Amino acid sequence: MPASSRHHLVVVGGGFGGLQLVNDLKGAALDITLVDKRNHHLFQPLLYQVATTLLATSEIAWPIRRLYRDRPEVTTLLAEVEGVDVVAKAIRLTYGKTIRYDTLVVATGATHAYFGKDEWEAVAPGLKTLEDATTIRRRVLLAFERAEIETDPAVRQALLTFTIIGAGPTGVELAGIISELAKSTLPKEFRRIDTRTARVILVEAGPRVLSGFSEDLSAYAHRALEGRGVEVRTGQRVTSCTQAGVTIDDTFVACRTMVWAAGVQASPAARWLGIAADRAGRAIVEKNLSAPGHADVFVIGDTASVLREDGTPVPGIAPAAKQQGAFVAKVIRARLNGQSEPAGFRYRHQGSLATIGKRSAIIDFGRFKMKGALAWWVWGIAHIYLIGTRSRFAVAWSWLWSYLSGQHSARLITQKETMRDRCADEHGEQ
Amino acid sequence: MPASSRHHLVVVGGGFGGLQLVNDLKGAALDITLVDKRNHHLFQPLLYQVATTLLATSEIAWPIRRLYRDRPEVTTLLAEVEGVDVVAKAIRLTYGKTIRYDTLVVATGATHAYFGKDEWEAVAPGLKTLEDATTIRRRVLLAFERAEIETDPAVRQALLTFTIIGAGPTGVELAGIISELAKSTLPKEFRRIDTRTARVILVEAGPRVLSGFSEDLSAYAHRALEGRGVEVRTGQRVTSCTQAGVTIDDTFVACRTMVWAAGVQASPAARWLGIAADRAGRAIVEKNLSAPGHADVFVIGDTASVLREDGTPVPGIAPAAKQQGAFVAKVIRARLNGQSEPAGFRYRHQGSLATIGKRSAIIDFGRFKMKGALAWWVWGIAHIYLIGTRSRFAVAWSWLWSYLSGQHSARLITQKETMRDRCADEHGEQ
Repeated sequence: MPASSRHHLVVVGGGFGGLQLVNDLKGAALDITLVDKRNHHLFQPLLYQVATTLLATSEIAWPIRRLYRDRPEVTTLLAEVEGVDVVAKAIRLTYGKTIRYDTLVVATGATHAYFGKDEWEAVAPGLKTLEDATTIRRRVLLAFERAEIETDPAVRQALLTFTIIGAGPTGVELAGIISELAKSTLPKEFRRIDTRTARVILVEAGPRVLSGFSEDLSAYAHRALEGRGVEVRTGQRVTSCTQAGVTIDDTFVACRTMVWAAGVQASPAARWLGIAADRAGRAIVEKNLSAPGHADVFVIGDTASVLREDGTPVPGIAPAAKQQGAFVAKVIRARLNGQSEPAGFRYRHQGSLATIGKRSAIIDFGRFKMKGALAWWVWGIAHIYLIGTRSRFAVAWSWLWSYLSGQHSARLITQKETMRDRCADEHGEQ
Repeated sequence: MPASSRHHLVVVGGGFGGLQLVNDLKGAALDITLVDKRNHHLFQPLLYQVATTLLATSEIAWPIRRLYRDRPEVTTLLAEVEGVDVVAKAIRLTYGKTIRYDTLVVATGATHAYFGKDEWEAVAPGLKTLEDATTIRRRVLLAFERAEIETDPAVRQALLTFTIIGAGPTGVELAGIISELAKSTLPKEFRRIDTRTARVILVEAGPRVLSGFSEDLSAYAHRALEGRGVEVRTGQRVTSCTQAGVTIDDTFVACRTMVWAAGVQASPAARWLGIAADRAGRAIVEKNLSAPGHADVFVIGDTASVLREDGTPVPGIAPAAKQQGAFVAKVIRARLNGQSEPAGFRYRHQGSLATIGKRSAIIDFGRFKMKGALAWWVWGIAHIYLIGTRSRFAVAWSWLWSYLSGQHSARLITQKETMRDRCADEHGEQ
């Protein structure tokens, strides 16, 4: 792509891993092409707040190409990758364009996994993209709107029942805020329904919520959810999922709004490269994160299967992807400079954070643990720090406004699925 | 709908007119049902800023039902009206629900008019709703993205040509900002195209831009647009509009992004009520804004055809709709209290404002006229004042950020039309 004879690095994916890599290669003697199928980097840890009307889309996403406006050696392309030709050393974009690389880094992330039940996706969307977030937001808000008009009590109750499947951080955060929305934000605005009667059900097949945390923090989160009115169903399985509702173990619950937070599947990087993958589709990589047999191709972030020293997998979280991006940047710099490469990648776990709702969070920094209101403030301040200059003030303002007024900023129903579609759902016309 | 025997007012439409009416009836002895097909009130005067990436959707729209959370006599319904039965005194909603009224106010606004060329709508969307704004934003941004990848110079030039049809305030504002986007916001972010070579063409069939203003202000706006690099084509007509481009008079211009800002058509209120309408579909009303023959039905805002004392039509702008809402509130109060009704509605024109781009606006308060940078600051401060508490700070922050950094806040490409669709456009697959 670049006319120069400099080393050409192609990075696919503008998530946390890809951006860290490009950032860390500032000043290196190479040309970089950064390809993403979206025009924006997404601050995924706060995506659930868009789905639950606390933040607006523009507050957690920003154009990738703006980030590199002062790096003339970085070319940003909005394009979808269809495959990789490791022999010709080129990636294929949609509509037949190809881009040659000297070094390739694949950082294309993960998407939802429905464990063979792909038909559930239309009914129970997952939460990975901005569109997912506005879809969930729209469905949650329309359910209340439709209930306000509905006269049949059974349909009304189904409209006021929300089921979240999977009690990892995303599921817990969604359940907590949807319950707060129903119990404290919305009641005064409706005349014919009492939104406080809404049921929020959180289903988890495993024995406890937030299983990535220690047992005591997990138990605290369980109690905090129940204190907010969420029905927590651990050790139970969703066995069917239709427009009419969910079956949990053997019990059918009539329900119109479902969200899938139960599993992820890596992007098809392993298939593009023709290398082995683990059960979740993550490419199995060498200790230096390169693809086996292809020393000039790296796979990082949620797309890669990487183990810690104790044999447990590196978690699919932003700090892990960033560390991998930073590591590969070091490898590339060393190669460019003819220096010896750093030893294999070692993941440093900095801690885990999760919120349950307003004034409630858990923090696990290993020896240092924290829960409750103070943890929630720490969580908030940490995220305002993490999110970057422009959005910092916008997010801080939205949160402060919401905290003081009890109101949410971003309660818009947009896009094509209107009340009519929601009604059509009722009549099975979808 | 309400169980009480109080007078029941039904208001259809939560725009400027409908909200002013409901606001002014605070404390009156009646029950109010406010119906809108969207869940949000939209601050339409700033909609063009969403279309051009300056503001985010949530900054100019907010849930209608939140506005009346402390007015228990006001019930808000998200529903679409299908017709009015003036004999039974009821409105029909989608899916067969009906609501009876004692007094009805129709304030359903206007939509685009393509003067019999409805097939142009898919190619040249208008700007009336949030979805319209995000559609235009997406198309403008995707055009630059696609041009960055395109290798055929002719296709690239077509992608970098933007045509705005109609030079009223919306057309002028869109042309001004799209040109600024191309000439000053984006250039540093693209590597393979020079966005400053983009053409922005503003076509107006009439003899001058902003014909609602005086000739000298209109001439100033014309010069200011040209100074920003906009090609202004007054006295010229678009005679065809396809995916390949527009024909202006007899000349074809290859162009991939077109916006329609040339005409509006009232909502079908006149048809619902079975009363006469003017050419633009606006219901012709009595001097007190009631529907002829139906003293308990009022039509206000862009849906009504109302004349000034000098015989010229009341303009379709927010202050006019607000004044009409306030007037009808007075009539309803007088009737409830058995007092004599106010005489016919009289429109008080407060002035006209329009922006051309950064640091350029025109203001016409009749005897007092203003143009240039100072007018632009007055315009900005006036709009921050008008937009309401929560958004005031968010909008002020977005503008300040944009002013100081030269960056736009809301440059997200979302929804379903992706790069692939944009590419499909090229191949005529739409």
